Amino acid sequence: MKIIRGGITAPKGFVCGAARAGLKKKGDDVCLIYSLFPAVADGVFTQNQVEAAPVTVSRAHLRQDLLAQAVIANSGCANCCTGERGLKDAARMAAAAARHLGIKKEDVLVASTGVIGRYLAIRKIEKIMPGLVKKLNQKNSLQVAKAIMTTDTFAKEYAVEIKVGHQANVRIGAVAKGAGMIHPNMATMLCFITTDIYISRRALKSALQAATARSFNAVTVDGDMSTNDSVIILANGAAGNQLVDKDDREFKVFAQALELVMKELAAMIVRDGEGATKFIEIEVKHCPSEWQALKIGRRIASSALFKTCVYGGDPNWGRVAAALGSAGVRIKRDRFDIYLGRRQVVKNGVTLGVDKSELKDAFRGKEVRVCVDLKMGRESATVWTCDLTEKYIKINAQYPT
Amino acid sequence: MKIIRGGITAPKGFVCGAARAGLKKKGDDVCLIYSLFPAVADGVFTQNQVEAAPVTVSRAHLRQDLLAQAVIANSGCANCCTGERGLKDAARMAAAAARHLGIKKEDVLVASTGVIGRYLAIRKIEKIMPGLVKKLNQKNSLQVAKAIMTTDTFAKEYAVEIKVGHQANVRIGAVAKGAGMIHPNMATMLCFITTDIYISRRALKSALQAATARSFNAVTVDGDMSTNDSVIILANGAAGNQLVDKDDREFKVFAQALELVMKELAAMIVRDGEGATKFIEIEVKHCPSEWQALKIGRRIASSALFKTCVYGGDPNWGRVAAALGSAGVRIKRDRFDIYLGRRQVVKNGVTLGVDKSELKDAFRGKEVRVCVDLKMGRESATVWTCDLTEKYIKINAQYPT
Repeated sequence: MKIIRGGITAPKGFVCGAARAGLKKKGDDVCLIYSLFPAVADGVFTQNQVEAAPVTVSRAHLRQDLLAQAVIANSGCANCCTGERGLKDAARMAAAAARHLGIKKEDVLVASTGVIGRYLAIRKIEKIMPGLVKKLNQKNSLQVAKAIMTTDTFAKEYAVEIKVGHQANVRIGAVAKGAGMIHPNMATMLCFITTDIYISRRALKSALQAATARSFNAVTVDGDMSTNDSVIILANGAAGNQLVDKDDREFKVFAQALELVMKELAAMIVRDGEGATKFIEIEVKHCPSEWQALKIGRRIASSALFKTCVYGGDPNWGRVAAALGSAGVRIKRDRFDIYLGRRQVVKNGVTLGVDKSELKDAFRGKEVRVCVDLKMGRESATVWTCDLTEKYIKINAQYPT
Repeated sequence: MKIIRGGITAPKGFVCGAARAGLKKKGDDVCLIYSLFPAVADGVFTQNQVEAAPVTVSRAHLRQDLLAQAVIANSGCANCCTGERGLKDAARMAAAAARHLGIKKEDVLVASTGVIGRYLAIRKIEKIMPGLVKKLNQKNSLQVAKAIMTTDTFAKEYAVEIKVGHQANVRIGAVAKGAGMIHPNMATMLCFITTDIYISRRALKSALQAATARSFNAVTVDGDMSTNDSVIILANGAAGNQLVDKDDREFKVFAQALELVMKELAAMIVRDGEGATKFIEIEVKHCPSEWQALKIGRRIASSALFKTCVYGGDPNWGRVAAALGSAGVRIKRDRFDIYLGRRQVVKNGVTLGVDKSELKDAFRGKEVRVCVDLKMGRESATVWTCDLTEKYIKINAQYPT
């Protein structure tokens, strides 16, 4: 596996572009990703029951047709709590892109991010569409990454190249946005992934779901779950490999690469968490199931008390223990171990009495590591989060509505 | 019902006192509440699986015997993650009080609050016990309330008097501590309640459980659940009323009064939330069950994004909608209404397009009210929380370990 440049246009047969429709205060706010060939497509969307209109429309388009050829997205307006009119606006957004690209509207997926409860300025988007379509080329990945930013402080893109069998170089590229409202079950987070692998739909679905669980669903910034979360993947088969299905050996290679790409973007989102100063890795080992390990990891990662003490550099592992016990997963209270960095502080549920002076460096660096060992099984999970700081409060107390 | 002075010594037959053992940096840190007569007792304790030793000991003492006569509590050390030694220390704490009071050790309940992972300085507590027992009198309720404070900024006590039948004036008194780590399922929170009603154990249990659900389990400060939460009630029968059982008319009068006392203390805890500047009331109406209404209310009350925008005075109701949809309770997305203060902003899941200028006062005052109407049933719940501020971060980044 090789890390390469080019983001979402690194894979063959993809072009993209961004433009300004005037939805957010400055900069580009609409972007379009287009595959020159019909692509096998899939998506993972928010589990929030107050689902934004573009999510509803994208789900419907994916149900109607296993293929897709474009993704149109905007920042500056979430198009959520907008009822029938919102659904029409999202459908019009897809239709406008389809019309100018000369494809079916069902082959366009839609995503939005921004303020909830405002109607989309759909005419502004329709107006810039011809110009946006003309702009599409293979060099615009970074512009797309920038156009979907809200409170993000840096653009997020990544791409890798892998060998699939002896035949072909396959590429995977992605852009993402995150920053606030990031939480398991998909964060307010958009991620668009392109790949030129030739793959079956069921194999693509399986790889996407596994990778989502271990990447975007394993990070949290503030415990809030958005109405707009969407991870969308298009696989256009332009690499020229033989069809990869779920049982093929090549499938594993692709699935691992996809997981890596999504983990890299998830980590960027955490590093760019609103107000974050530290990157926190929580490893939960030896659980009966991976699902339980993730649940415990997320609970610790969501504890405001834990995240503030990491910010303060205070090695107060009691907050890890308290979060562990309240995760809603059955544990053995006389068996669990806790480590701060490499230093063990709890053995079989009992403090080792490690002096605070010996732990003072545990939460001091930019990268903090906590490990909880339940000694109850074979499954593990790693969850990433960031510290909770005064700056998070400042950003969110003043987010423009 | 009449609000009266005297806190936990307002009811007949109770004395209390506090003393300094040197567990926290300054001030009294051990307190003792004693009923002159054996009292019917009950408790509600943390659901955190990493349960502190005093919780385990108190549960055991309540199982062995329906009566209790004293509560001994300390601040400055949680006695949690302390294994066998912690259990022995908690048992010794009860035994020391029992010995000097001349009662059985099973009739003493124990509570601790403070840092997790340190052993209790049990000898210091044993040493001050004779002096503490001598100090017991009817005027010390406020000292007890102060001795259990950790990051609390004011002492919390309350008492009421009610008529039970035509016979007797019954009193209920209580002290509590809270401040941080406050969350449904019992917050790091201690509350000791005394009453002189003559009541059956099953009636007392029923009243305590209902009142806990609507008071301490309906408040949240930061979403963290402590290892030490304990609500303990002693009912010594000194009021001289006829025995009250669950089916008696008088039971309702008592249950309502108990609920009121506990709600008052819960509200004080929220007002004293770490760094709080505003009191937030979230009403969730017309749910299929009270339990679901509480779950939705708690989810909104736990949203860091919602709490920071209240702090910032920004009427960003989208954060209420996002939290509502992620509570894990099935809702109808084309039916719910949202109100900020008295102003409706969402009808049947769709924005009413109320201009921000008309909403600017909604989150400006010291008291903020949000109402969500699901229009799906007959049950409602009210949850209280506070805003999330920079000061919360400062307090918790520097909590002494």
